[in-house]
Amino acid sequence: MLVGGIEAGGTKFVCAVTDGKNGIQERISMPTETPEQTMPRLFEYFDQFDHLDAIGLASFGPIDVNPKSKTYGSIIDTPKAGWEHYDILGAMKAHYPDTQFAFTTDVNAAAYGELKMGAADGLDSCVYLTVGTGIGGGVVEHSQILQGYSHPEIGHMLIRQQPEDSYEGTCPYHHNCLEGLAAGPAIERRWGKKGHLLPADHQAWQMEADYLAQACVNIALMLSPERIVFGGGVSKQAQLFPMIRESFKRQMAGYVQTPDLDDYIVHVALGDDAGITGVLLLAADQL
Amino acid sequence: MLVGGIEAGGTKFVCAVTDGKNGIQERISMPTETPEQTMPRLFEYFDQFDHLDAIGLASFGPIDVNPKSKTYGSIIDTPKAGWEHYDILGAMKAHYPDTQFAFTTDVNAAAYGELKMGAADGLDSCVYLTVGTGIGGGVVEHSQILQGYSHPEIGHMLIRQQPEDSYEGTCPYHHNCLEGLAAGPAIERRWGKKGHLLPADHQAWQMEADYLAQACVNIALMLSPERIVFGGGVSKQAQLFPMIRESFKRQMAGYVQTPDLDDYIVHVALGDDAGITGVLLLAADQL
Repeated sequence: MLVGGIEAGGTKFVCAVTDGKNGIQERISMPTETPEQTMPRLFEYFDQFDHLDAIGLASFGPIDVNPKSKTYGSIIDTPKAGWEHYDILGAMKAHYPDTQFAFTTDVNAAAYGELKMGAADGLDSCVYLTVGTGIGGGVVEHSQILQGYSHPEIGHMLIRQQPEDSYEGTCPYHHNCLEGLAAGPAIERRWGKKGHLLPADHQAWQMEADYLAQACVNIALMLSPERIVFGGGVSKQAQLFPMIRESFKRQMAGYVQTPDLDDYIVHVALGDDAGITGVLLLAADQL
Repeated sequence: MLVGGIEAGGTKFVCAVTDGKNGIQERISMPTETPEQTMPRLFEYFDQFDHLDAIGLASFGPIDVNPKSKTYGSIIDTPKAGWEHYDILGAMKAHYPDTQFAFTTDVNAAAYGELKMGAADGLDSCVYLTVGTGIGGGVVEHSQILQGYSHPEIGHMLIRQQPEDSYEGTCPYHHNCLEGLAAGPAIERRWGKKGHLLPADHQAWQMEADYLAQACVNIALMLSPERIVFGGGVSKQAQLFPMIRESFKRQMAGYVQTPDLDDYIVHVALGDDAGITGVLLLAADQL
Protein backbone atom coordinates (compact mmCIF):
# COMPACT_ATOMS: atom_id res chain seq x y z
CA MET A 1 0.00 0.00 0.00
CA LEU A 2 1.17 3.50 -0.78
CA VAL A 3 -1.03 6.50 -0.08
CA GLY A 4 -0.54 10.21 -0.57
CA GLY A 5 -1.79 13.18 1.40
CA ILE A 6 -2.14 16.86 0.64
CA GLU A 7 -2.75 19.56 3.19
CA ALA A 8 -3.76 22.51 1.04
CA GLY A 9 -3.47 25.63 3.15
CA GLY A 10 -3.87 29.25 2.25
CA THR A 11 -0.12 29.84 2.64
CA LYS A 12 1.46 26.52 1.68
CA PHE A 13 0.71 23.04 0.39
CA VAL A 14 2.21 20.10 2.25
CA CYS A 15 2.38 16.82 0.32
CA ALA A 16 3.44 13.50 1.79
CA VAL A 17 3.28 9.76 1.23
CA THR A 18 3.20 6.77 3.55
CA ASP A 19 3.03 2.99 3.28
CA GLY A 20 0.79 2.99 6.34
CA LYS A 21 3.40 1.31 8.52
CA ASN A 22 6.36 3.65 8.80
CA GLY A 23 4.77 7.05 9.38
CA ILE A 24 5.30 9.94 6.98
CA GLN A 25 8.04 8.79 4.58
CA GLU A 26 8.30 11.58 2.07
CA ARG A 27 7.17 15.14 2.37
CA ILE A 28 7.50 18.42 0.57
CA SER A 29 6.10 21.87 1.13
CA MET A 30 5.41 24.48 -1.54
CA PRO A 31 3.93 27.98 -1.41
CA THR A 32 0.25 28.38 -2.38
CA GLU A 33 0.37 30.31 -5.66
CA THR A 34 -2.31 30.09 -8.35
CA PRO A 35 -3.74 26.69 -9.37
CA GLU A 36 -1.82 27.00 -12.68
CA GLN A 37 1.45 27.26 -10.76
CA THR A 38 0.78 25.01 -7.77
CA MET A 39 -1.03 22.03 -9.30
CA PRO A 40 1.74 21.04 -11.79
CA ARG A 41 4.29 21.06 -8.95
CA LEU A 42 1.99 18.89 -6.90
CA PHE A 43 1.53 16.42 -9.81
CA GLU A 44 5.30 16.40 -10.35
CA TYR A 45 5.80 15.34 -6.76
CA PHE A 46 3.25 12.52 -6.75
CA ASP A 47 4.20 11.35 -10.26
CA GLN A 48 7.53 10.20 -8.81
CA PHE A 49 5.74 7.29 -7.19
CA ASP A 50 4.84 4.34 -9.33
CA HIS A 51 1.24 4.08 -8.13
CA LEU A 52 -0.69 5.62 -5.26
CA ASP A 53 -3.64 3.55 -4.09
CA ALA A 54 -5.34 6.53 -2.48
CA ILE A 55 -4.80 10.23 -2.00
CA GLY A 56 -6.30 12.33 0.77
CA LEU A 57 -6.92 15.98 0.04
CA ALA A 58 -7.53 18.34 2.96
CA SER A 59 -8.16 21.87 1.81
CA PHE A 60 -8.65 25.33 3.22
CA GLY A 61 -12.28 26.29 2.86
CA PRO A 62 -15.12 26.72 2.70
CA ILE A 63 -15.14 23.80 0.29
CA ASP A 64 -17.95 21.72 -1.17
CA VAL A 65 -17.77 18.37 0.64
CA ASN A 66 -21.31 17.27 -0.20
CA PRO A 67 -21.14 14.32 -2.62
CA LYS A 68 -24.75 15.06 -3.65
CA SER A 69 -23.76 18.54 -4.89
CA LYS A 70 -22.88 19.47 -8.47
CA THR A 71 -19.83 21.38 -7.29
CA TYR A 72 -18.55 18.63 -4.97
CA GLY A 73 -14.78 18.87 -4.71
CA SER A 74 -14.51 22.61 -5.34
CA ILE A 75 -13.27 25.45 -3.21
CA ILE A 76 -16.34 27.64 -2.72
CA ASP A 77 -15.11 31.00 -1.65
CA THR A 78 -11.66 32.41 -0.96
CA PRO A 79 -9.77 35.66 -1.45
CA LYS A 80 -6.79 33.60 -2.78
CA ALA A 81 -6.38 34.47 -6.49
CA GLY A 82 -7.47 31.69 -8.83
CA TRP A 83 -8.80 29.29 -6.21
CA GLU A 84 -12.39 30.52 -5.94
CA HIS A 85 -14.73 27.89 -7.44
CA TYR A 86 -11.65 25.86 -8.44
CA ASP A 87 -12.47 22.15 -8.71
CA ILE A 88 -9.39 20.94 -6.89
CA LEU A 89 -10.64 17.39 -6.38
CA GLY A 90 -11.70 17.15 -10.05
CA ALA A 91 -8.22 18.22 -11.14
CA MET A 92 -6.64 15.54 -8.95
CA LYS A 93 -9.02 12.84 -10.19
CA ALA A 94 -8.35 13.77 -13.83
CA HIS A 95 -4.62 13.35 -13.28
CA TYR A 96 -4.91 10.16 -11.20
CA PRO A 97 -7.95 8.36 -12.60
CA ASP A 98 -7.19 5.01 -10.93
CA THR A 99 -6.71 6.39 -7.44
CA GLN A 100 -9.23 6.53 -4.58
CA PHE A 101 -9.73 9.94 -2.99
CA ALA A 102 -10.69 11.33 0.40
CA PHE A 103 -11.71 14.99 0.49
CA THR A 104 -12.30 17.17 3.51
CA THR A 105 -11.24 20.41 5.19
CA ASP A 106 -7.75 20.97 6.61
CA VAL A 107 -9.23 21.26 10.12
CA ASN A 108 -11.32 18.10 9.81
CA ALA A 109 -8.15 16.26 8.80
CA ALA A 110 -6.34 17.69 11.82
CA ALA A 111 -9.20 16.56 14.08
CA TYR A 112 -8.93 13.07 12.61
CA GLY A 113 -5.14 13.04 13.03
CA GLU A 114 -5.45 14.06 16.68
CA LEU A 115 -8.14 11.42 17.27
CA LYS A 116 -6.15 8.57 15.77
CA MET A 117 -2.58 9.43 16.76
CA GLY A 118 -2.59 12.60 18.86
CA ALA A 119 -4.20 14.28 21.84
CA ALA A 120 -7.51 12.38 21.48
CA ASP A 121 -5.94 8.97 20.79
CA GLY A 122 -8.19 6.13 21.94
CA LEU A 123 -11.40 8.19 21.86
CA ASP A 124 -14.27 8.13 19.37
CA SER A 125 -14.91 11.85 19.14
CA CYS A 126 -13.11 15.17 19.35
CA VAL A 127 -13.29 18.75 18.18
CA TYR A 128 -10.10 20.39 16.90
CA LEU A 129 -10.02 24.17 17.10
CA THR A 130 -7.19 26.11 15.51
CA VAL A 131 -6.76 29.69 16.70
CA GLY A 132 -4.36 31.68 14.54
CA THR A 133 -4.91 34.18 11.72
CA GLY A 134 -8.45 32.77 11.67
CA ILE A 135 -10.38 30.26 13.77
CA GLY A 136 -11.32 26.93 12.23
CA GLY A 137 -12.86 23.82 13.70
CA GLY A 138 -12.90 20.16 12.72
CA VAL A 139 -15.27 17.57 14.18
CA VAL A 140 -15.02 13.80 14.51
CA GLU A 141 -17.96 11.86 15.98
CA HIS A 142 -18.34 8.06 16.04
CA SER A 143 -14.73 8.00 14.72
CA GLN A 144 -15.82 9.62 11.48
CA ILE A 145 -15.67 13.16 10.23
CA LEU A 146 -18.93 14.98 10.81
CA GLN A 147 -20.63 15.61 7.51
CA GLY A 148 -24.07 17.04 7.05
CA TYR A 149 -25.11 19.45 4.33
CA SER A 150 -21.56 20.78 4.44
CA HIS A 151 -18.65 20.87 6.90
CA PRO A 152 -18.76 22.75 10.21
CA GLU A 153 -17.56 26.36 10.34
CA ILE A 154 -17.21 26.53 14.10
CA GLY A 155 -14.90 29.55 13.94
CA HIS A 156 -17.82 31.74 12.92
CA MET A 157 -20.21 30.84 15.75
CA LEU A 158 -22.02 33.86 17.15
CA ILE A 159 -20.81 34.56 20.67
CA ARG A 160 -21.48 37.17 23.32
CA GLN A 161 -19.12 40.10 23.33
CA GLN A 162 -18.00 41.35 26.72
CA PRO A 163 -19.52 44.75 27.63
CA GLU A 164 -16.04 46.19 28.30
CA ASP A 165 -14.76 45.07 24.87
CA SER A 166 -15.47 47.83 22.38
CA TYR A 167 -13.49 46.28 19.51
CA GLU A 168 -15.74 45.95 16.46
CA GLY A 169 -14.37 42.59 15.32
CA THR A 170 -12.42 41.52 12.23
CA CYS A 171 -14.85 39.17 10.49
CA PRO A 172 -15.95 40.61 7.13
CA TYR A 173 -19.21 38.62 7.37
CA HIS A 174 -20.29 38.77 11.02
CA HIS A 175 -17.90 41.35 12.56
CA ASN A 176 -17.93 40.08 16.15
CA CYS A 177 -18.33 36.31 15.76
CA LEU A 178 -15.78 34.03 17.49
CA GLU A 179 -13.16 34.52 14.77
CA GLY A 180 -13.90 38.24 14.64
CA LEU A 181 -13.25 38.65 18.37
CA ALA A 182 -10.65 36.01 19.21
CA ALA A 183 -8.37 35.22 16.23
CA GLY A 184 -4.84 36.62 16.14
CA PRO A 185 -5.69 39.77 14.12
CA ALA A 186 -8.41 40.72 16.66
CA ILE A 187 -5.88 40.51 19.50
CA GLU A 188 -3.41 42.63 17.55
CA ARG A 189 -5.91 45.34 16.60
CA ARG A 190 -7.57 45.45 20.03
CA TRP A 191 -4.34 45.76 22.03
CA GLY A 192 -2.05 47.36 19.44
CA LYS A 193 0.50 44.54 19.46
CA LYS A 194 0.74 41.02 18.10
CA GLY A 195 -0.23 38.42 20.70
CA HIS A 196 3.24 36.92 21.00
CA LEU A 197 4.58 40.37 21.99
CA LEU A 198 2.11 40.73 24.87
CA PRO A 199 3.28 39.53 28.33
CA ALA A 200 1.70 36.35 29.70
CA ASP A 201 -0.06 38.33 32.46
CA HIS A 202 -1.59 40.91 30.05
CA GLN A 203 -5.35 41.38 30.42
CA ALA A 204 -5.68 40.36 26.76
CA TRP A 205 -5.36 36.72 27.78
CA GLN A 206 -8.23 36.69 30.26
CA MET A 207 -10.52 38.12 27.57
CA GLU A 208 -9.17 35.64 25.02
CA ALA A 209 -9.68 32.77 27.47
CA ASP A 210 -13.26 33.89 28.16
CA TYR A 211 -14.12 33.93 24.45
CA LEU A 212 -12.51 30.56 23.79
CA ALA A 213 -14.21 29.12 26.88
CA GLN A 214 -17.57 30.37 25.63
CA ALA A 215 -16.85 28.57 22.36
CA CYS A 216 -16.00 25.42 24.32
CA VAL A 217 -19.29 25.64 26.26
CA ASN A 218 -21.26 25.78 23.02
CA ILE A 219 -19.15 22.98 21.53
CA ALA A 220 -19.79 20.79 24.59
CA LEU A 221 -23.53 21.58 24.50
CA MET A 222 -23.98 21.07 20.77
CA LEU A 223 -21.43 18.42 19.80
CA SER A 224 -20.60 16.74 23.12
CA PRO A 225 -17.12 15.64 22.04
CA GLU A 226 -14.99 13.56 24.37
CA ARG A 227 -12.15 16.10 24.06
CA ILE A 228 -11.50 19.60 22.67
CA VAL A 229 -8.04 20.02 21.16
CA PHE A 230 -6.56 23.48 20.50
CA GLY A 231 -3.98 24.16 17.81
CA GLY A 232 -2.73 27.22 15.94
CA GLY A 233 -0.42 30.09 16.84
CA VAL A 234 -2.52 31.73 19.55
CA SER A 235 -2.91 28.39 21.36
CA LYS A 236 0.87 28.30 21.87
CA GLN A 237 0.25 30.72 24.77
CA ALA A 238 0.35 28.04 27.47
CA GLN A 239 -1.03 30.38 30.15
CA LEU A 240 -4.39 30.32 28.29
CA PHE A 241 -5.29 26.73 29.14
CA PRO A 242 -5.90 27.01 32.91
CA MET A 243 -7.82 30.23 32.24
CA ILE A 244 -10.01 28.63 29.55
CA ARG A 245 -10.80 25.68 31.85
CA GLU A 246 -11.70 27.98 34.75
CA SER A 247 -13.88 30.20 32.56
CA PHE A 248 -15.55 27.14 30.98
CA LYS A 249 -16.48 25.90 34.44
CA ARG A 250 -17.95 29.26 35.38
CA GLN A 251 -19.92 29.68 32.14
CA MET A 252 -21.21 26.09 32.01
CA ALA A 253 -22.40 26.50 35.62
CA GLY A 254 -22.45 22.76 36.29
CA TYR A 255 -25.10 22.01 33.71
CA VAL A 256 -23.58 19.10 31.81
CA GLN A 257 -21.03 16.56 32.88
CA THR A 258 -17.73 16.60 31.06
CA PRO A 259 -14.52 14.68 31.64
CA ASP A 260 -12.05 16.28 34.05
CA LEU A 261 -11.24 19.63 32.44
CA ASP A 262 -7.47 19.02 32.43
CA ASP A 263 -8.22 16.13 30.07
CA TYR A 264 -11.06 17.85 28.23
CA ILE A 265 -9.55 21.11 26.98
CA VAL A 266 -6.03 20.34 25.79
CA HIS A 267 -3.25 21.41 23.44
CA VAL A 268 -2.64 19.64 20.14
CA ALA A 269 -0.18 16.71 20.36
CA LEU A 270 0.88 16.44 16.71
CA GLY A 271 1.58 20.17 16.37
CA ASP A 272 1.84 21.28 12.78
CA ASP A 273 1.68 17.64 11.61
CA ALA A 274 -1.95 17.10 12.70
CA GLY A 275 -3.44 17.94 9.30
CA ILE A 276 -1.05 15.95 7.10
CA THR A 277 -1.18 12.97 9.49
CA GLY A 278 -4.98 13.01 9.48
CA VAL A 279 -5.32 13.27 5.73
CA LEU A 280 -2.94 10.34 5.17
CA LEU A 281 -5.04 8.26 7.59
CA LEU A 282 -8.22 9.30 5.75
CA ALA A 283 -6.62 8.25 2.46
CA ALA A 284 -5.67 4.86 3.92
CA ASP A 285 -9.28 4.44 5.16
CA GLN A 286 -10.44 4.48 1.53
CA LEU A 287 -8.72 1.13 0.87
CA MET B 1 -40.58 -9.17 14.87
CA LEU B 2 -42.21 -7.23 17.66
CA VAL B 3 -40.56 -4.18 19.19
CA GLY B 4 -41.61 -1.82 21.94
CA GLY B 5 -40.95 1.85 22.45
CA ILE B 6 -41.13 4.17 25.44
CA GLU B 7 -41.10 7.92 25.28
CA ALA B 8 -40.45 8.86 28.88
CA GLY B 9 -41.34 12.52 29.27
CA GLY B 10 -41.45 14.71 32.34
CA THR B 11 -45.27 14.81 32.21
CA LYS B 12 -46.25 11.46 30.69
CA PHE B 13 -44.90 8.16 29.47
CA VAL B 14 -46.03 6.94 26.04
CA CYS B 15 -45.57 3.22 25.38
CA ALA B 16 -46.18 1.53 22.04
CA VAL B 17 -45.39 -1.59 20.04
CA THR B 18 -44.97 -2.31 16.36
CA ASP B 19 -44.20 -5.29 14.12
CA GLY B 20 -42.14 -2.97 11.90
CA LYS B 21 -44.63 -3.22 9.02
CA ASN B 22 -47.90 -1.73 10.17
CA GLY B 23 -46.92 1.43 12.02
CA ILE B 24 -47.74 1.96 15.69
CA GLN B 25 -50.12 -0.87 16.59
CA GLU B 26 -50.70 -0.45 20.28
CA ARG B 27 -50.16 2.56 22.44
CA ILE B 28 -50.89 3.79 25.94
CA SER B 29 -50.08 6.93 27.80
CA MET B 30 -49.64 7.26 31.56
CA PRO B 31 -48.74 10.19 33.82
CA THR B 32 -45.13 10.42 35.03
CA GLU B 33 -45.38 9.74 38.76
CA THR B 34 -42.55 8.26 40.85
CA PRO B 35 -40.55 5.28 39.51
CA GLU B 36 -42.29 3.07 42.11
CA GLN B 37 -45.68 4.00 40.63
CA THR B 38 -44.83 4.35 36.95
CA MET B 39 -42.50 1.43 36.27
CA PRO B 40 -44.93 -1.35 37.37
CA ARG B 41 -47.61 0.11 35.06
CA LEU B 42 -45.11 0.15 32.22
CA PHE B 43 -44.13 -3.49 32.85
CA GLU B 44 -47.79 -4.44 33.03
CA TYR B 45 -48.31 -2.97 29.58
CA PHE B 46 -45.35 -4.68 27.89
CA ASP B 47 -45.93 -7.98 29.76
CA GLN B 48 -49.11 -8.40 27.69
CA PHE B 49 -46.97 -9.28 24.69
CA ASP B 50 -45.47 -12.72 24.48
CA HIS B 51 -41.97 -11.57 23.59
CA LEU B 52 -40.47 -8.26 22.54
CA ASP B 53 -37.28 -8.58 20.47
CA ALA B 54 -36.18 -5.06 21.28
CA ILE B 55 -37.32 -2.07 23.29
CA GLY B 56 -36.32 1.52 22.64
CA LEU B 57 -36.25 3.87 25.59
CA ALA B 58 -36.19 7.61 24.94
CA SER B 59 -36.07 9.59 28.14
CA PHE B 60 -36.21 13.16 29.34
CA GLY B 61 -32.75 14.20 30.45
CA PRO B 62 -29.99 14.88 31.00
CA ILE B 63 -29.39 11.13 30.97
CA ASP B 64 -26.21 9.08 30.89
CA VAL B 65 -25.97 7.73 27.34
CA ASN B 66 -22.25 6.93 27.48
CA PRO B 67 -21.81 3.12 27.40
CA LYS B 68 -18.30 3.57 28.87
CA SER B 69 -19.77 5.20 32.00
CA LYS B 70 -20.58 3.44 35.28
CA THR B 71 -23.96 5.15 35.44
CA TYR B 72 -24.91 4.41 31.81
CA GLY B 73 -28.69 4.17 31.54
CA SER B 74 -29.51 6.50 34.43
CA ILE B 75 -31.29 9.82 34.58
CA ILE B 76 -28.62 12.25 35.81
CA ASP B 77 -30.44 15.26 37.10
CA THR B 78 -34.10 16.20 37.28
CA PRO B 79 -36.42 18.02 39.66
CA LYS B 80 -38.99 15.14 39.17
CA ALA B 81 -39.32 13.33 42.53
CA GLY B 82 -37.67 9.92 42.58
CA TRP B 83 -36.13 10.04 39.09
CA GLU B 84 -32.80 11.69 39.89
CA HIS B 85 -30.01 9.11 39.48
CA TYR B 86 -32.67 6.48 38.73
CA ASP B 87 -31.26 3.68 36.57
CA ILE B 88 -34.22 3.46 34.22
CA LEU B 89 -32.45 1.34 31.61
CA GLY B 90 -31.17 -1.03 34.31
CA ALA B 91 -34.72 -1.48 35.64
CA MET B 92 -35.96 -2.32 32.13
CA LYS B 93 -33.12 -4.76 31.47
CA ALA B 94 -33.73 -6.53 34.79
CA HIS B 95 -37.37 -7.05 33.87
CA TYR B 96 -36.70 -8.07 30.24
CA PRO B 97 -33.34 -9.85 30.33
CA ASP B 98 -33.66 -11.39 26.83
CA THR B 99 -34.53 -8.15 25.05
CA GLN B 100 -32.21 -5.81 23.12
CA PHE B 101 -32.36 -2.16 24.14
CA ALA B 102 -31.81 1.22 22.53
CA PHE B 103 -31.40 4.16 24.90
CA THR B 104 -31.32 7.84 24.06
CA THR B 105 -32.97 11.18 24.81
CA ASP B 106 -36.58 11.97 23.89
CA VAL B 107 -35.38 14.69 21.50
CA ASN B 108 -32.79 12.46 19.81
CA ALA B 109 -35.58 9.94 19.19
CA ALA B 110 -37.76 12.68 17.72
CA ALA B 111 -34.90 13.76 15.43
CA TYR B 112 -34.53 10.16 14.27
CA GLY B 113 -38.27 9.81 13.69
CA GLU B 114 -38.36 12.98 11.62
CA LEU B 115 -35.32 11.82 9.62
CA LYS B 116 -36.74 8.42 8.80
CA MET B 117 -40.44 9.14 8.40
CA GLY B 118 -41.07 12.84 8.82
CA ALA B 119 -39.91 16.29 7.76
CA ALA B 120 -36.34 15.17 7.01
CA ASP B 121 -37.31 11.95 5.22
CA GLY B 122 -34.71 10.93 2.65
CA LEU B 123 -31.87 12.90 4.24
CA ASP B 124 -28.88 11.69 6.26
CA SER B 125 -28.82 14.43 8.88
CA CYS B 126 -31.13 16.75 10.77
CA VAL B 127 -31.44 18.68 13.98
CA TYR B 128 -34.77 18.58 15.85
CA LEU B 129 -35.45 21.51 18.15
CA THR B 130 -38.46 21.47 20.44
CA VAL B 131 -39.50 24.84 21.83
CA GLY B 132 -42.05 24.56 24.61
CA THR B 133 -41.75 24.68 28.40
CA GLY B 134 -38.04 24.15 27.73
CA ILE B 135 -35.88 23.93 24.63
CA GLY B 136 -34.34 20.61 23.70
CA GLY B 137 -32.41 19.49 20.65
CA GLY B 138 -31.74 16.13 19.03
CA VAL B 139 -29.08 15.51 16.39
CA VAL B 140 -28.76 12.89 13.67
CA GLU B 141 -25.64 12.85 11.45
CA HIS B 142 -24.67 10.13 8.97
CA SER B 143 -28.13 8.66 9.72
CA GLN B 144 -27.13 7.94 13.30
CA ILE B 145 -27.76 9.74 16.54
CA LEU B 146 -24.86 11.98 17.45
CA GLN B 147 -23.09 10.59 20.48
CA GLY B 148 -19.89 11.88 21.94
CA TYR B 149 -19.09 12.09 25.64
CA SER B 150 -22.80 12.58 26.21
CA HIS B 151 -25.84 13.79 24.25
CA PRO B 152 -26.21 17.35 22.96
CA GLU B 153 -27.96 19.93 25.13
CA ILE B 154 -28.55 22.45 22.36
CA GLY B 155 -31.29 24.24 24.30
CA HIS B 156 -28.71 25.66 26.68
CA MET B 157 -26.37 27.19 24.08
CA LEU B 158 -25.14 30.63 25.08
CA ILE B 159 -26.65 33.25 22.78
CA ARG B 160 -26.55 37.02 22.51
CA GLN B 161 -29.35 38.82 24.27
CA GLN B 162 -30.84 41.79 22.44
CA PRO B 163 -29.91 45.14 24.06
CA GLU B 164 -33.60 46.11 24.28
CA ASP B 165 -34.49 42.86 26.07
CA SER B 166 -34.08 43.40 29.80
CA TYR B 167 -35.62 40.07 30.85
CA GLU B 168 -33.17 38.20 33.08
CA GLY B 169 -33.93 34.74 31.69
CA THR B 170 -35.53 31.65 33.23
CA CYS B 171 -32.66 29.14 33.16
CA PRO B 172 -31.61 28.22 36.71
CA TYR B 173 -28.08 27.42 35.44
CA HIS B 174 -27.27 30.06 32.81
CA HIS B 175 -30.11 32.62 33.21
CA ASN B 176 -30.09 33.98 29.63
CA CYS B 177 -29.09 30.98 27.52
CA LEU B 178 -31.34 30.00 24.57
CA GLU B 179 -33.85 28.20 26.81
CA GLY B 180 -33.69 31.00 29.36
CA LEU B 181 -34.63 33.62 26.76
CA ALA B 182 -36.81 31.79 24.26
CA ALA B 183 -38.75 28.92 25.86
CA GLY B 184 -42.45 29.35 26.64
CA PRO B 185 -41.99 30.51 30.26
CA ALA B 186 -39.61 33.29 29.12
CA ILE B 187 -42.23 34.58 26.67
CA GLU B 188 -44.87 34.52 29.38
CA ARG B 189 -42.79 36.30 32.01
CA ARG B 190 -41.38 38.88 29.59
CA TRP B 191 -44.73 39.89 28.08
CA GLY B 192 -47.08 39.05 30.95
CA LYS B 193 -49.15 36.56 28.96
CA LYS B 194 -48.76 33.03 27.70
CA GLY B 195 -47.55 32.93 24.10
CA HIS B 196 -50.75 31.45 22.69
CA LEU B 197 -52.67 34.44 24.09
CA LEU B 198 -50.47 36.99 22.27
CA PRO B 199 -51.62 38.13 18.81
CA ALA B 200 -49.64 36.91 15.79
CA ASP B 201 -48.36 40.43 15.10
CA HIS B 202 -47.14 41.05 18.68
CA GLN B 203 -43.52 42.22 18.92
CA ALA B 204 -42.83 39.14 21.06
CA TRP B 205 -42.64 37.04 17.90
CA GLN B 206 -39.93 39.07 16.17
CA MET B 207 -37.75 38.76 19.26
CA GLU B 208 -38.55 35.05 19.51
CA ALA B 209 -37.72 34.57 15.82
CA ASP B 210 -34.41 36.41 16.23
CA TYR B 211 -33.36 34.19 19.13
CA LEU B 212 -34.39 31.00 17.35
CA ALA B 213 -32.67 32.18 14.16
CA GLN B 214 -29.49 32.84 16.12
CA ALA B 215 -29.72 29.27 17.40
CA CYS B 216 -30.17 28.05 13.81
CA VAL B 217 -27.07 29.99 12.67
CA ASN B 218 -24.96 28.30 15.34
CA ILE B 219 -26.52 24.93 14.54
CA ALA B 220 -25.72 25.37 10.83
CA LEU B 221 -22.16 26.48 11.62
CA MET B 222 -21.42 23.77 14.15
CA LEU B 223 -23.46 20.76 13.02
CA SER B 224 -24.21 21.53 9.37
CA PRO B 225 -27.41 19.46 9.27
CA GLU B 226 -29.33 19.09 6.03
CA ARG B 227 -32.49 20.33 7.75
CA ILE B 228 -33.59 21.93 11.04
CA VAL B 229 -36.98 20.73 12.26
CA PHE B 230 -38.95 22.63 14.91
CA GLY B 231 -41.45 20.99 17.23
CA GLY B 232 -43.07 21.87 20.58
CA GLY B 233 -45.83 24.24 21.60
CA VAL B 234 -44.17 27.56 20.74
CA SER B 235 -43.37 26.29 17.22
CA LYS B 236 -47.12 25.98 16.58
CA GLN B 237 -47.05 29.76 15.96
CA ALA B 238 -46.89 29.49 12.18
CA GLN B 239 -46.03 33.18 11.73
CA LEU B 240 -42.62 32.46 13.31
CA PHE B 241 -41.23 30.48 10.39
CA PRO B 242 -40.87 33.22 7.74
CA MET B 243 -39.45 35.49 10.43
CA ILE B 244 -36.89 32.89 11.57
CA ARG B 245 -35.78 32.31 7.97
CA GLU B 246 -35.41 36.04 7.31
CA SER B 247 -33.50 36.62 10.52
CA PHE B 248 -31.28 33.58 9.84
CA LYS B 249 -30.37 35.03 6.46
CA ARG B 250 -29.51 38.38 8.03
CA GLN B 251 -27.44 36.91 10.86
CA MET B 252 -25.59 34.36 8.69
CA ALA B 253 -24.67 37.19 6.30
CA GLY B 254 -24.09 34.85 3.38
CA TYR B 255 -21.20 33.02 5.01
CA VAL B 256 -22.15 29.39 4.47
CA GLN B 257 -24.33 27.79 1.86
CA THR B 258 -27.48 26.12 3.09
CA PRO B 259 -30.37 24.55 1.20
CA ASP B 260 -33.20 26.92 0.26
CA LEU B 261 -34.43 28.25 3.61
CA ASP B 262 -38.06 27.20 3.02
CA ASP B 263 -36.73 23.63 2.99
CA TYR B 264 -34.09 24.17 5.64
CA ILE B 265 -36.01 25.55 8.62
CA VAL B 266 -39.29 23.66 8.82
CA HIS B 267 -42.06 22.49 11.13
CA VAL B 268 -42.20 18.94 12.46
CA ALA B 269 -44.17 16.51 10.24
CA LEU B 270 -44.97 13.79 12.78
CA GLY B 271 -46.23 16.25 15.40
CA ASP B 272 -46.44 14.70 18.85
CA ASP B 273 -45.65 11.26 17.36
CA ALA B 274 -42.05 12.14 16.40
CA GLY B 275 -40.52 10.78 19.61
CA ILE B 276 -42.43 7.50 19.86
CA THR B 277 -41.97 6.85 16.12
CA GLY B 278 -38.24 7.47 16.37
CA VAL B 279 -37.73 5.28 19.41
CA LEU B 280 -39.58 2.36 17.81
CA LEU B 281 -37.32 2.72 14.75
CA LEU B 282 -34.24 2.79 17.00
CA ALA B 283 -35.46 -0.37 18.72
CA ALA B 284 -35.95 -2.10 15.35
CA ASP B 285 -32.41 -1.05 14.35
CA GLN B 286 -31.07 -3.20 17.21
CA LEU B 287 -32.19 -6.36 15.41
